[in-house]
Amino acid sequence: MPGLHLIADLLGCAPASPMRDEAALAALCRREAAAAGLTVVGELFHPFTHDDGTRAGVTGVLLLAESHVAIHTWPERGLVTLDVYVCNVNDDRSAGAERLLAALREAFVPAHVALHRVRRDTGAGVAASADR
Amino acid sequence: MPGLHLIADLLGCAPASPMRDEAALAALCRREAAAAGLTVVGELFHPFTHDDGTRAGVTGVLLLAESHVAIHTWPERGLVTLDVYVCNVNDDRSAGAERLLAALREAFVPAHVALHRVRRDTGAGVAASADR
Repeated sequence: MPGLHLIADLLGCAPASPMRDEAALAALCRREAAAAGLTVVGELFHPFTHDDGTRAGVTGVLLLAESHVAIHTWPERGLVTLDVYVCNVNDDRSAGAERLLAALREAFVPAHVALHRVRRDTGAGVAASADR
Repeated sequence: MPGLHLIADLLGCAPASPMRDEAALAALCRREAAAAGLTVVGELFHPFTHDDGTRAGVTGVLLLAESHVAIHTWPERGLVTLDVYVCNVNDDRSAGAERLLAALREAFVPAHVALHRVRRDTGAGVAASADR
């Protein structure tokens, strides 16, 4: 079956959400990935700072046995971008991916969300994805 | 301007390509990211092994100042999936993203490529992306 890559751009996120704290963001991602039945095999979160030393956004990833999660935050813009990708090579993890995306989205309380669902080709006969 | 997320699924990749060696894969990604004018701020590559201890695929990411690169390989399937995402919040890095994707794609000598170009919403007035 094809892989599923969920791409969400969250606009107008709540200032109080964990956009500046990489440890809190990593903990949120780990917790929700586990709750969605996904298996974390690695993580890397990088904080950015403004020129005056104050905290800016965070870029982070979880490596999953099922593929990956990526998150980027821009607190000064109220912007968060999310990726949840499950390859579905061995098992269909699409429901877990949707659950994880919903949980992360909810944590940032966005005013608007632009969501793309991309079916990814694993060579298992998903020609329909090739023309997107 | 909107961000650009390039999603490529490479099918029928050459067996000799660096699909099983996480150090070679990381070096390839770092080198081509630099050649494309992108700035690496972190990297994480995870090798998978089969039950008999032989090497399977690799999952890896580069964290970029401009967003991220993600790669997953399945050598037993001749399959590689690539993501190159540049947020374009400060500068338009789309040309660098295209260059990086082309270089990585070339390294695996795929027989077929399914490519998606997703415009990502940064709140800078890209309503056209919201309905994709």
